[in-house]
Amino acid sequence: MEVIRSNFADALERVGEAIHEAEFLAIDAEFSGLEQVADLRKSEYDVEQYYIDIAALVKRYNIIQFGLCAFTWSAVSQSYISKPFNFYLFPTTTTGTARLDRPFSVQPSAIDFLAKHSFDFNKWLYCGIPWLTQAEEESLVQQYRNKVQKGFDDIVEDKKGKEYMETARIQIKQVYTSKDGFVNLVPHNAYLRRLVYQEIRNHHPDLIAQGRPGFIQVRVAKKDESDQIKQRDMDRFERDLSEARGFRAVFDMMKASRKPIVGHNLLVDIMMMQSQFEGGLPADFEAFKRDIQMSFPCILDTKFICETAAGLQIKSTSLDALLDQTSQYDCPPVDMHPAFTRYFEGRLHEAGYDAYVTGRLLIRLMYHLGASPTDIGVAQHQRAIAKSGPVGQNKHAKVDMNTLKAYYNKLNLSKGHFTVVNLDA
Amino acid sequence: MEVIRSNFADALERVGEAIHEAEFLAIDAEFSGLEQVADLRKSEYDVEQYYIDIAALVKRYNIIQFGLCAFTWSAVSQSYISKPFNFYLFPTTTTGTARLDRPFSVQPSAIDFLAKHSFDFNKWLYCGIPWLTQAEEESLVQQYRNKVQKGFDDIVEDKKGKEYMETARIQIKQVYTSKDGFVNLVPHNAYLRRLVYQEIRNHHPDLIAQGRPGFIQVRVAKKDESDQIKQRDMDRFERDLSEARGFRAVFDMMKASRKPIVGHNLLVDIMMMQSQFEGGLPADFEAFKRDIQMSFPCILDTKFICETAAGLQIKSTSLDALLDQTSQYDCPPVDMHPAFTRYFEGRLHEAGYDAYVTGRLLIRLMYHLGASPTDIGVAQHQRAIAKSGPVGQNKHAKVDMNTLKAYYNKLNLSKGHFTVVNLDA
Repeated sequence: MEVIRSNFADALERVGEAIHEAEFLAIDAEFSGLEQVADLRKSEYDVEQYYIDIAALVKRYNIIQFGLCAFTWSAVSQSYISKPFNFYLFPTTTTGTARLDRPFSVQPSAIDFLAKHSFDFNKWLYCGIPWLTQAEEESLVQQYRNKVQKGFDDIVEDKKGKEYMETARIQIKQVYTSKDGFVNLVPHNAYLRRLVYQEIRNHHPDLIAQGRPGFIQVRVAKKDESDQIKQRDMDRFERDLSEARGFRAVFDMMKASRKPIVGHNLLVDIMMMQSQFEGGLPADFEAFKRDIQMSFPCILDTKFICETAAGLQIKSTSLDALLDQTSQYDCPPVDMHPAFTRYFEGRLHEAGYDAYVTGRLLIRLMYHLGASPTDIGVAQHQRAIAKSGPVGQNKHAKVDMNTLKAYYNKLNLSKGHFTVVNLDA
Repeated sequence: MEVIRSNFADALERVGEAIHEAEFLAIDAEFSGLEQVADLRKSEYDVEQYYIDIAALVKRYNIIQFGLCAFTWSAVSQSYISKPFNFYLFPTTTTGTARLDRPFSVQPSAIDFLAKHSFDFNKWLYCGIPWLTQAEEESLVQQYRNKVQKGFDDIVEDKKGKEYMETARIQIKQVYTSKDGFVNLVPHNAYLRRLVYQEIRNHHPDLIAQGRPGFIQVRVAKKDESDQIKQRDMDRFERDLSEARGFRAVFDMMKASRKPIVGHNLLVDIMMMQSQFEGGLPADFEAFKRDIQMSFPCILDTKFICETAAGLQIKSTSLDALLDQTSQYDCPPVDMHPAFTRYFEGRLHEAGYDAYVTGRLLIRLMYHLGASPTDIGVAQHQRAIAKSGPVGQNKHAKVDMNTLKAYYNKLNLSKGHFTVVNLDA
């Protein structure tokens, strides 16, 4: 399901439902870029330094497309049911009274890569969903409260402003004697408009100034009118704030669910998510690991599993190559939920589809390794099989996620002489 | 005329012709963003500080669309003929052997503004024309020469690399005894591929390794083959370099022409162009003025003229409002060259169209102020009229650009308590 600005509010309930019922959540993200850091093969380079170098880059770039695919086991159909969502993310400022303008970096080679895979940049920039971190949201609320309590900051009248306001003040006074009960002022630019509002605010508490297309109407306030306007303004701010919060609602639901998060080579994805939706990254790797443990206690990296599990005989661990190489693995079918029609045909490198493929891969690995457990997972595997109960008429006993417990929170670092980042260590 | 990556090489000749024959060049640019600097109304703020603050921002952002409209006087039709070009600019890395990956910033509110005016972001990011500064071009040439002379830098064999290369070395030796005269190697990732090339380069000068889809073919070199390959590589590099140089060819032609450059509120446009195509901006405003004098000796800002010329009675100096307010000015017709069909209907805020509108506005101002010269321009005006010769049967004597000499190199700074940046001072 494609989720953009216009259907985000409606989609949110379905996303929440999918997360709630899921056994695990597969994710994938496309970035606006990410430059190379130092050559990871150099032996003096360690994970702590890698974290610091990547963190500095991660802060500048954005996730521009986020794929979330929820997988559920259906006892009825004896298959997994998947619900893939593909979100476009762009920090638009078109959220009315609750807006933040946050520049970010774009790396041309990342754009060229996305173009090669038919990325729709118009959809991204016209329809991307915004987000606010918790801190950004609180700061907007605080700003709004200050504005309501103390009003706007006054601006200085420059020469042209003075000229214009001399005439404007005469016009404003005419309101009190006007037959219609109002006058229309036509300040020609945003600066002069601000001066008019400032004049009314500071010197005419009994008048109301309202923006109209091309002019400002000034009139005598009715009884309780200014309270009503305040209430209407606050309602609008709440609506705008909810729109601006946007995708963080999904991130918060993912966190709250404490469901296993599955990705392919997802260390940087996790750093990017944490930076973008929590607001920045801690200064060192130890603190980052603690933060991630709190947010996502169980993370599985299919690339790490494929790189390290004994007996898999895998040549290439890119996502599309893995889908081929594991196609003969014996496991229950993975069906697409019938309401999710977008990926009946494949769309590799679209985040929602890649998340779906990653989840399928995890299921194959789970059953394959569950059937012929590796040294690393024997004990967990036996416990998991025992827990799942006896094999009945069905071809496949349901295998528990804990079959893969040995791989929990171990993330691939593909280009290093080290190949694992252990979040639990 | 819309100019994108695919028709740029073909369009270049027409652009050059239009610049060559033009009386003046109107320009406009759309940026990927530009944040606000300090409040210019504060009295302690001066032009030098403004330059420094804007320069710091300009370096981070890019021109993403450039409008160039060449205006010529046609004695035959007694009208001006305009040729508007609209270039999309994006520093793509898809220029083969001559590529640079230069991240830049995007400001969400700038994107929202462009979206409001139907900007085609897919055209920008799929079809934008790249550019190289002179220094970047020289550095790529130097890199290429180094590569040819000294070859690639060697990389270290890690554990997986060693494993793979043990087998690969045995395969490579089989070339000499092979019936077919070649062997095909299948390294599974870019790292292993580099190791294969490195092996051939360092230990088998008599062999040739050539990349094929999915594998590398290694075979015995024929006589002179390596010289031929070198020549072919160099030809390809030259082609790629020319593609990567891209839009700088237009910028260089504009500079070389020394034609008057006309824009509306174009101080930042000029800074952006200078930064993007010359490579950076000087540290202080004095040096910037000297640089601009060298590149563009005559710049006219229609906004500055409208803000300051006596007797114009102009209320709003935004481009679209000015087109309305000056519609009754008496001047020769401005025709679109018949081969330039894109703007038969208006497309405000597309750079090519805005450049065209700016040029039309300049012509109106030139004839209006020429007919009723302001104090500021009297002397120049009289000289200009004298130079143009007597008024014949035509309704309009051709007015010389020098009518506007008093406005040369004076640029508007709209939000300041100062309203002029004098590049000549």
